[in-house]
Amino acid sequence: MSVQIAGVASTPFGEHPGSSTRELFTDAALEALEDASLSPAAVEELYVGNFIGDLTDDQAHVGAMLADAIGAQQAASVRTESACASASSAVRSGVQALEAGDADVAVVGGVELMSASGLGEVTDALANAADNEYENEAGLTFPGIYALMAQAYLHEFDATQADLAAVAVKNYENGVSNPLAQRQEETTVERVLDSPPIATPLNLGDCCPITDGASAAVLVSDAFADEHGLETTVTFAGSGQSSDSLALQDRPDLARTRAAERAAEDAYERAGISADDVDVVELHDCFTIAEILAVESLGFFERGEGARGAVDGETAVGGRIPINTSGGLLAKGHPVGATGVAQLVEITKQLEGRHPNQIDDPSVGLTHTVGGSGASCVVNVLRTGGA
Amino acid sequence: MSVQIAGVASTPFGEHPGSSTRELFTDAALEALEDASLSPAAVEELYVGNFIGDLTDDQAHVGAMLADAIGAQQAASVRTESACASASSAVRSGVQALEAGDADVAVVGGVELMSASGLGEVTDALANAADNEYENEAGLTFPGIYALMAQAYLHEFDATQADLAAVAVKNYENGVSNPLAQRQEETTVERVLDSPPIATPLNLGDCCPITDGASAAVLVSDAFADEHGLETTVTFAGSGQSSDSLALQDRPDLARTRAAERAAEDAYERAGISADDVDVVELHDCFTIAEILAVESLGFFERGEGARGAVDGETAVGGRIPINTSGGLLAKGHPVGATGVAQLVEITKQLEGRHPNQIDDPSVGLTHTVGGSGASCVVNVLRTGGA
Repeated sequence: MSVQIAGVASTPFGEHPGSSTRELFTDAALEALEDASLSPAAVEELYVGNFIGDLTDDQAHVGAMLADAIGAQQAASVRTESACASASSAVRSGVQALEAGDADVAVVGGVELMSASGLGEVTDALANAADNEYENEAGLTFPGIYALMAQAYLHEFDATQADLAAVAVKNYENGVSNPLAQRQEETTVERVLDSPPIATPLNLGDCCPITDGASAAVLVSDAFADEHGLETTVTFAGSGQSSDSLALQDRPDLARTRAAERAAEDAYERAGISADDVDVVELHDCFTIAEILAVESLGFFERGEGARGAVDGETAVGGRIPINTSGGLLAKGHPVGATGVAQLVEITKQLEGRHPNQIDDPSVGLTHTVGGSGASCVVNVLRTGGA
Repeated sequence: MSVQIAGVASTPFGEHPGSSTRELFTDAALEALEDASLSPAAVEELYVGNFIGDLTDDQAHVGAMLADAIGAQQAASVRTESACASASSAVRSGVQALEAGDADVAVVGGVELMSASGLGEVTDALANAADNEYENEAGLTFPGIYALMAQAYLHEFDATQADLAAVAVKNYENGVSNPLAQRQEETTVERVLDSPPIATPLNLGDCCPITDGASAAVLVSDAFADEHGLETTVTFAGSGQSSDSLALQDRPDLARTRAAERAAEDAYERAGISADDVDVVELHDCFTIAEILAVESLGFFERGEGARGAVDGETAVGGRIPINTSGGLLAKGHPVGATGVAQLVEITKQLEGRHPNQIDDPSVGLTHTVGGSGASCVVNVLRTGGA
């Protein structure tokens, strides 16, 4: 059997003052169900990524809350949490539930409401993705953690702060064409280099924003699609997920993300493809350095060569391997628990030929989502085809 | 294909001052792997239930933390959260991963460290399983929520506070024989009725304790068991999971748990059995009333008749349908995120004939785990057999 993507939706990403987690997710899920021409009564499994709802909203148990909210009390409902990769784990679990034969219709999604909390509070909450005993207690925050990774990269390879900034320039530009993106302005290498330093070598322009948002996708078995006459055109091709040391200090090389390498290898094998077959990618650019590490882990560039992707235009819309045509986390925004499914939404739109930054005739797309500084990573592969 | 239970373990439940989440789970997981005669290097999937680690320990992303801690960085690692049913969702996801053909070896487990936080802090954290907007803001805590359910039951049916207390008497007695149980003392109906009132009609003796603990189980495909000569004797037979209104106020009947009814129906259908085929049960007695509601939802007693189960000895070890031979949450303890797998550990030991309160020759066992006041429920069914 194969799993089809029957419908997708994201809310606009940005600040949603006055909206609740419940409202944001309901908007995304009902729109995805409408896109699939299905009602909430059809949903058998609901997997929702959410990272810090208990810290920002005093609300855990969000799987059940959201099954209730969207009108799908009959469904099995679970929150999956793998830090920033939470929603991509939700996708993987939804696919497995269908492949196991336990269900024919799953809604997978994610939601995070971050802007209502103060910046200090959000920074503290985000630190829950790092190793509390060994990193947070020592004063590290996520910009600091990625700055250490960036320092290692710039030290080890022939790359500069301007190369990091080129990633932001590309992704901000893509975001301008995406009506759902949080940032709607272009930038330049000079502006990124002149933006306030956050944790050297990362400046404000190298960092993704604090975002509210929700995303959802409807997965159906091919048998269900056939039986109900659903015209699906995108198929789930395979996934990989792996882990790494939680604390940066335990890794042999700070300029390398091993969980991503393993996840990509597994995903390619299960999908029966290689990196060369991938036409379009949404990956985890929470900071500019993260995109560079990712394109290397995914096999699109040799180690130490990833920095030239944005500089030379190879990762631009229309380039050799278009990366983050949505604007990525840097411009589209990063509502942590929703990000993995937001990436899936964007790739599905590319494969269906209805993306605002549409590339020519893609047939294989990929999402790459990282938990924390890389202690978990999920790679999901989609292809055109349908039931 | 079928999924086998290859090894199980729980830490002692109780207070573990000075132990970390990492240490507790590692103890349980490594003991379960030893029980299965497997090394951490064999683990492909790790699903860990954890409810409030980010509130008690400032630590989320515990799937990756624990994959790292047990020496299984190669594994896909995910935290599942469905309030008090978190670990039973982990079991279900682990089974689905194997049935989907994505892996041959999964560790499923759970962990919670609750005693280090103050009682007020823990009560607030537990409230994250209820509806924050509509219940917590109105001042409800979990003893209050279950007291409302108990009041409705005593009003609707011919049952008394003494009938509730009989559940505690039975489960405390079972706990005395279980070396892993937190409470190691018997009680009487009079002592429960004389214990301090918590939320009428529930007294202190009607409430489960605050517990630290971890549990783990190793699941393998039958092909893997055959290939590696593992002698497994317990097979996963089927599961069901469903949802209900998050807030009590939205339910038509407070003395009924609809998610449990639906989950049981699904689990029985998938396992190809009826309630009459079940020989031994671990169910979610977070309060005495919860056991009475559960035995009715699972079909062991008609509605309104569940209260006589403990009074008449039908649910005792050696009774018609032995319930919570481990001592249950009331006596064994309730480390929230670990509870569902702790139940699986106890049922596995019963089916393997090595339980401290062994019943005669059981062939089908069941776990029932409730999230919050019943907005989610997971029922997992095991049977003797093996690969």
